[in-house]
Amino acid sequence: MQVDLNADMGESFGPWVMGQDEALLDVVTSANVACGFHAGDPEVMAATMRAATARGVGIGAHPGFADLQGFGRRRMHLPEKTLRAMVQYQLAAALGMARAAGSEVRHLKLHGALSNMASEDEGMAEACYGAALEVAPEIIVMVLAGTAQQRVVEKLGCLWAGEIFADRAYNADATLVDRRLPGAVLHEAGPAAERIVKMVQAGAILPETGDPIPAAIDTICLHGDGPTALPMARAVRVALEGAGIAVRTFEGRRGAFGSQAG
Amino acid sequence: MQVDLNADMGESFGPWVMGQDEALLDVVTSANVACGFHAGDPEVMAATMRAATARGVGIGAHPGFADLQGFGRRRMHLPEKTLRAMVQYQLAAALGMARAAGSEVRHLKLHGALSNMASEDEGMAEACYGAALEVAPEIIVMVLAGTAQQRVVEKLGCLWAGEIFADRAYNADATLVDRRLPGAVLHEAGPAAERIVKMVQAGAILPETGDPIPAAIDTICLHGDGPTALPMARAVRVALEGAGIAVRTFEGRRGAFGSQAG
Amino acid sequence: MQVDLNADMGESFGPWVMGQDEALLDVVTSANVACGFHAGDPEVMAATMRAATARGVGIGAHPGFADLQGFGRRRMHLPEKTLRAMVQYQLAAALGMARAAGSEVRHLKLHGALSNMASEDEGMAEACYGAALEVAPEIIVMVLAGTAQQRVVEKLGCLWAGEIFADRAYNADATLVDRRLPGAVLHEAGPAAERIVKMVQAGAILPETGDPIPAAIDTICLHGDGPTALPMARAVRVALEGAGIAVRTFEGRRGAFGSQAG
Amino acid sequence: MQVDLNADMGESFGPWVMGQDEALLDVVTSANVACGFHAGDPEVMAATMRAATARGVGIGAHPGFADLQGFGRRRMHLPEKTLRAMVQYQLAAALGMARAAGSEVRHLKLHGALSNMASEDEGMAEACYGAALEVAPEIIVMVLAGTAQQRVVEKLGCLWAGEIFADRAYNADATLVDRRLPGAVLHEAGPAAERIVKMVQAGAILPETGDPIPAAIDTICLHGDGPTALPMARAVRVALEGAGIAVRTFEGRRGAFGSQAG
Repeated sequence: MQVDLNADMGESFGPWVMGQDEALLDVVTSANVACGFHAGDPEVMAATMRAATARGVGIGAHPGFADLQGFGRRRMHLPEKTLRAMVQYQLAAALGMARAAGSEVRHLKLHGALSNMASEDEGMAEACYGAALEVAPEIIVMVLAGTAQQRVVEKLGCLWAGEIFADRAYNADATLVDRRLPGAVLHEAGPAAERIVKMVQAGAILPETGDPIPAAIDTICLHGDGPTALPMARAVRVALEGAGIAVRTFEGRRGAFGSQAG
Repeated sequence: MQVDLNADMGESFGPWVMGQDEALLDVVTSANVACGFHAGDPEVMAATMRAATARGVGIGAHPGFADLQGFGRRRMHLPEKTLRAMVQYQLAAALGMARAAGSEVRHLKLHGALSNMASEDEGMAEACYGAALEVAPEIIVMVLAGTAQQRVVEKLGCLWAGEIFADRAYNADATLVDRRLPGAVLHEAGPAAERIVKMVQAGAILPETGDPIPAAIDTICLHGDGPTALPMARAVRVALEGAGIAVRTFEGRRGAFGSQAG
Repeated sequence: MQVDLNADMGESFGPWVMGQDEALLDVVTSANVACGFHAGDPEVMAATMRAATARGVGIGAHPGFADLQGFGRRRMHLPEKTLRAMVQYQLAAALGMARAAGSEVRHLKLHGALSNMASEDEGMAEACYGAALEVAPEIIVMVLAGTAQQRVVEKLGCLWAGEIFADRAYNADATLVDRRLPGAVLHEAGPAAERIVKMVQAGAILPETGDPIPAAIDTICLHGDGPTALPMARAVRVALEGAGIAVRTFEGRRGAFGSQAG
Repeated sequence: MQVDLNADMGESFGPWVMGQDEALLDVVTSANVACGFHAGDPEVMAATMRAATARGVGIGAHPGFADLQGFGRRRMHLPEKTLRAMVQYQLAAALGMARAAGSEVRHLKLHGALSNMASEDEGMAEACYGAALEVAPEIIVMVLAGTAQQRVVEKLGCLWAGEIFADRAYNADATLVDRRLPGAVLHEAGPAAERIVKMVQAGAILPETGDPIPAAIDTICLHGDGPTALPMARAVRVALEGAGIAVRTFEGRRGAFGSQAG
């Protein structure tokens, strides 16, 4: 039994620092590196990739909307052709920067509003992933487990990995509990870590109410912002390892969930 | 006897069109594709690369300063680390976009003020080319013949190609005649084409006054802007072919000029 | 009987030229000047305002989304606070640049997707216009006649002017005929000019089918792009003047349409 | 006897926070607000101006190069026309945003590399200040005392205020001691505060070696970055007030230093 831990990284820009990348790199096994459109700049990207490589952390390209002020969190409506080129450009930049850092890009994860929109809209997910695979056919696409993102990678036949959140409560249909509701976000490290262990052991998302939902839990999304982020990340790792679950970079699965070894 | 013809391309941005890429692609054998920092955007880049690929025109990455308003023509003073990451990022983006277009990036050419500064300053040229070679060790670096750019690629031992201008007069020391002096820029297609044929046949830059200067003339820089650009480009190609000189994409040379077959 | 003619201007950016501003300035009486977010840059803005001032053409601030590549035509979902500051900043920049040009900003008109969204959503229109009025309380807000934009300025009690399109067909409910339907866009100068004269004389929008819709027709929107734009603009002006309608910069009206002299 | 204390503010951008504006606003009497080109965005600008207004702190426009990644600290070589429009645009934006905040812009201070270049080059200072005065003729131009900036405002006849640094050592010719030399930057609050009191009392810059240099000391530049910034800012204010020097927003002087009451 094994699982990967991932977090967004390289979100500083010019003189503005964001996150605690150095500390977080000691906890995670995969780093989603911003590609300069919603955060990051070429220099930050290079430094982040070198730091990840030095620690053996897997590098992911983390493309987002070209909206620096909005940090890629504001929904933008783009034609498919624009969307495709936007993802290809950012992924391509990451691929070459990783090579310069003596490493490689193992996975792709969409950022912010781009990810949210693609988790609701198969057409959009397919545009993004299809475009990415033209640039890097063997890349592992990290998807939000149980969303349109997953349905698309199952169809495309590419390598993929399913992701769940360490700090978000789930509804009975595997969607996230609305942030505005009480209990939607877990703030305490202990209970969050305990819950994640149970989900990994069950191979299922455990909603607040309702039955376990079998899910491809290949990686767990951690956060680097805020005072509670780092303690929670560490608690999750310690709890997983304490339960005998290996914390390791994912290898990627192919095809429909359930129909393969995973 | 053969020579390459190159021109800058993919300089449109969003709704703003620049140049006459389609027509020029029928004349040149190498296209220097803007990488989105001084001109171009991911969509323009994708379209330009597809068009070049369809015509068998060699694709080059053409990085410049991150200065869209100034079109990369304004000198910026950047730390070496920033410069290196800036070149790597743009080259990397081009590499991946070319792969998505079913092609590859054959060469690298610096743009505008970045090229001017690197033609005067070996340290800067070395930073840019050294960084690029970390991303793509087998890329052919296109240099302004007889400048610091050439001295650096000779030292680095990478593949390179020397370039001269179809429409600029040269001084006796191989520098360009100051644009403000009469005769500095050739506007008529006929004489310009004739002169280029002579230079390629002589394997030397022919300055306005003074002796021929042996030079690595692997490619000739043409322009796509203005009403006289396209006729001149066509005249140069016709004149070269009429003189029995094959117009073909360069293969790249290695080491000091004069010491190899080239 | 009088009417204003307006067009978007100052949409060039750096080395990229857009439109035929000089020629159009001889036709229109109001210029909507891009403010550097979706198009234009400070230098283009300065030149455009000086040119407008030299011809006695009224200057308008024409703010849009901060989306240069998308030319402000892609919908973005912004928090109200962001939207307000974005409009204030652009309007403010225009006010000061106009002063430097020896002139002033008379009106405000939203651009592209920002205008489309505000024409459907009163809350958004109120955020934009309310914010603008904090910067320039006496500015004339140009609204798409019969839309949420108009309802908001009627409520706010500010100066406003209603606008119709010279080249777009209207539905019976005063909305525009969908661009994808035949006849939605008028391409011929003659019929378009004739139709506009009738609308101004009737003080009403004349839909393709259905009854005339009384409307605040204070200004007519012309375009500067494409080969037919300038001939149509000129034809509209000639036809209006031929029918004895004075073509003059609007003064602005206040309050609900119908309840005032206008 | 009185003096002003100023600091750069509003340098956050989107989700990236910089500085400790709230705390610093309790110490300074003038705030140099970034205008969105090298730092700040419209929303940050609005919030910063409202906070300054609430505390009675004077607002300044603080324009810089359009170089967000470089924070306006990298030298750019721009044509005079571009430079002028760039300063006018940013100042204009600040003027209107301040009006929306129920306040006004009292002064102008150039940022980073733009300021450095203008302190060495009268032509550049004159381009920037001349352009600004076309937008706001009564603005107080804050200049680095004893530099080309001061010579230009003396010539222009505009309102101005002279500035010295709380934490930088001066040479005998009033230039700053090179940052790379020991003692160039004062890190301890106590000695720095003491030195500033002496300078204000003497009406002169006190270099490390050499005679006092009479100077227009109207305002003292404080910093908001780093752990020692805030304690030093507070110490300077306490020391000045303890010595009976009123800490108050400057009124601005006109004409050559020494020839007026100041």
